[in-house]
Amino acid sequence: MIARAAGGTDPAGGAPDGAEGQGARRPFFRSRWVPAPAHVLELEPSRGLPGGFRASGASCGIKPSGRPDLGLLVCDAPDAVSAARFTSSSAAAAPVRITRERCRLNALRAVLANSGCANAATGARGLEDAAKTQGAAALATGVPEAQVALASTGSISDELPVEAMLKGILRAKDALSAGGDGAFTEAIQTTDAFEKRAQLEVQLPSGSVRLSAQCKGAGMISPRFATMLCFVQTDAQLDPETAELLLGVCVARSFDRISVDGQLSTNDTAILMCSGASGIRIAPESEDELRLGEALDALLRQLAILIVADGEGAGRIARVVARGSSEQLIERAARAVANSPLVKAALHGGDPNWGRIAQAVGGALPGEEPLALEISIEGIRVCAAGAAVPHDAAALRDAVQGGEVEFEIGLTGSGAKTEVFFSDLSPGYVAVNAEYTT
Amino acid sequence: MIARAAGGTDPAGGAPDGAEGQGARRPFFRSRWVPAPAHVLELEPSRGLPGGFRASGASCGIKPSGRPDLGLLVCDAPDAVSAARFTSSSAAAAPVRITRERCRLNALRAVLANSGCANAATGARGLEDAAKTQGAAALATGVPEAQVALASTGSISDELPVEAMLKGILRAKDALSAGGDGAFTEAIQTTDAFEKRAQLEVQLPSGSVRLSAQCKGAGMISPRFATMLCFVQTDAQLDPETAELLLGVCVARSFDRISVDGQLSTNDTAILMCSGASGIRIAPESEDELRLGEALDALLRQLAILIVADGEGAGRIARVVARGSSEQLIERAARAVANSPLVKAALHGGDPNWGRIAQAVGGALPGEEPLALEISIEGIRVCAAGAAVPHDAAALRDAVQGGEVEFEIGLTGSGAKTEVFFSDLSPGYVAVNAEYTT
Repeated sequence: MIARAAGGTDPAGGAPDGAEGQGARRPFFRSRWVPAPAHVLELEPSRGLPGGFRASGASCGIKPSGRPDLGLLVCDAPDAVSAARFTSSSAAAAPVRITRERCRLNALRAVLANSGCANAATGARGLEDAAKTQGAAALATGVPEAQVALASTGSISDELPVEAMLKGILRAKDALSAGGDGAFTEAIQTTDAFEKRAQLEVQLPSGSVRLSAQCKGAGMISPRFATMLCFVQTDAQLDPETAELLLGVCVARSFDRISVDGQLSTNDTAILMCSGASGIRIAPESEDELRLGEALDALLRQLAILIVADGEGAGRIARVVARGSSEQLIERAARAVANSPLVKAALHGGDPNWGRIAQAVGGALPGEEPLALEISIEGIRVCAAGAAVPHDAAALRDAVQGGEVEFEIGLTGSGAKTEVFFSDLSPGYVAVNAEYTT
Repeated sequence: MIARAAGGTDPAGGAPDGAEGQGARRPFFRSRWVPAPAHVLELEPSRGLPGGFRASGASCGIKPSGRPDLGLLVCDAPDAVSAARFTSSSAAAAPVRITRERCRLNALRAVLANSGCANAATGARGLEDAAKTQGAAALATGVPEAQVALASTGSISDELPVEAMLKGILRAKDALSAGGDGAFTEAIQTTDAFEKRAQLEVQLPSGSVRLSAQCKGAGMISPRFATMLCFVQTDAQLDPETAELLLGVCVARSFDRISVDGQLSTNDTAILMCSGASGIRIAPESEDELRLGEALDALLRQLAILIVADGEGAGRIARVVARGSSEQLIERAARAVANSPLVKAALHGGDPNWGRIAQAVGGALPGEEPLALEISIEGIRVCAAGAAVPHDAAALRDAVQGGEVEFEIGLTGSGAKTEVFFSDLSPGYVAVNAEYTT
């Protein structure tokens, strides 16, 4: 999906991927921005979930298409450890509110996820509906309610079809298996053009552990919503504090660093669950923790980049790296570039129009003092001290034709650095979002 | 250009307008959001500028097309009074910096404006070039340099063709006339689809004064830039403090309240010049000041709405009105809606997808407390206390088919109110901005 090198010709578009058994499988770590750590092995998809986990998917009729729309994920270890992150939207959907407010977030043992309905902007009724499905999932799996997380994605303001979901939960419960992560992934997808799933083996000083993940989210916003959901499992044995630390750090470096259209979903959710089934304990501040953290970091960064690369009309993705002395200013500058429709449209057209980068940064950082901005594109410096510098225009144009394009911006001073991954903006994106009818 | 009533079918697209002598002229005040004040009369374009002003346009070869690209505006009154507002971008272009830093902003008597080159991101060289043209314009018009404002719009990072401009200044000087506002307007346009110019008579208790304006700016960003420039003239006699107050208040209610794609230009400039030629003095805090302020307010608001309605692919415009107790929060909420590509794409498609409004507001106002959001579209309430309310879906769909669509959002509390005007997002916008090549 994503070219490995600058100037590559492999488009980052949404061709189907991960179709098992159809020829050679592409490596999971395929962005040049996420080298596979040396101690991490990619496993065959057929290897299933790490020890202690079972999953399944079912069709219960939420999606009019009849495609799978309900997923169940269970950790059989009674002392499972977890950590979770949610959208910061104040219009958070009912499943987010129920999970955040009523669950033991460091001891989650099950996830009930559905696609086709976000259960957002549904008020008190939405909370009641979500609670009913949580209760049913608890009953079906034998996991206490406070350890059953909920996640929904799909159209907003629609009421959750509770009756259909109750039947689906029973079917999904019967289908739970260690190899059910593919079915689970399919059930949480909405307009995803390709599967985002990984099965890794991580070699730690204390032994090997497994790490797996199922993720949904399309870079370009889907007709209704582009919620991102990500569920990660490991058979390593983590303290709650370690799980919290690792997920927090890795989400901040991955899902928090992507921008599709600057639009925050009502339903974003990321959950890490640890069964401990491998018997390998990850001690705080140990080499094991460091190595597992590196693996989780690479996993979530690659998944985040796959989200950016997916979606209607997406043809090319980019990373903007900003440097300067103020973390706050470089963050604003990088976000401004990543969210600029002008920069994104130029990215789509393979146009190295760096004036739009200068304009986006200048607009995001108001002030009468002239901005001493530096800009490089794929290593070619085009602007220094706020003014154009001579450069090879033909080489610059060639450099932005690849599937992954890198922009670097420098503000005054040094010491702080940040990055944001973003997708391009195509006529197809607008067409899909304009022509769709509620 | 803009339908006058809800549910109208007159598209807000960019059909040519203001073509004099080609049948009936459309009224200048044509948005339902800007009723023409009763004491303001629209004059024929042939009436020219208010007393004390002359203007002209010339072609000096900055635009490869050979179309007019240099405009000159002069106030012959030695004691002219003025006020000015500029972009807040820290990447402000050389003409903005020269004018802001070296001019007597309350006593401007001439404007040298060019299209085809923004003279932005041009560093020290750009400042020197701008200063040379300022000196030449001062020499040609006999106006001291510190009273000659500069304004540029066009492609960024290109060097200003000083030699060509010097010749153009001489030609423009020879062409100066009271009826030259049309030629001046043409010379400052870039990708504007229609002319934005007004000639008004304002009836004040102390007598009649004239008010005229020339404005450029295309709602959808033009291939390179969508700088807005606006020059306003009156023959009323104002104190500098009054000019400053009136321009400040009216810009805050007009050009500061529009959003096309959330992108701030490096070159935005608005200048009010007062010749005093009518002999009618506008005393501070008088009924005259109030009435002149109302006229200027309506003038700038209508011009701002015309900017939003202009541009590639623009088919429909909208106003979002936000109410609540916190000015800061309603401002963020309104901007989030106006800048959301999802809301804008739905607007383009005539799709009353209010879930996208809830999502935009929720994302802009992070917090775990649920948002007690109210949403109405064209007066039809669709969301209350953050949850959907029953409504007539067919009526709602009909209501968003007009050229102007109104969204109202209510946050907790009351007392504060704001509004933002914005354009839709069409595939054409992206195509133009993606396919354009530097």
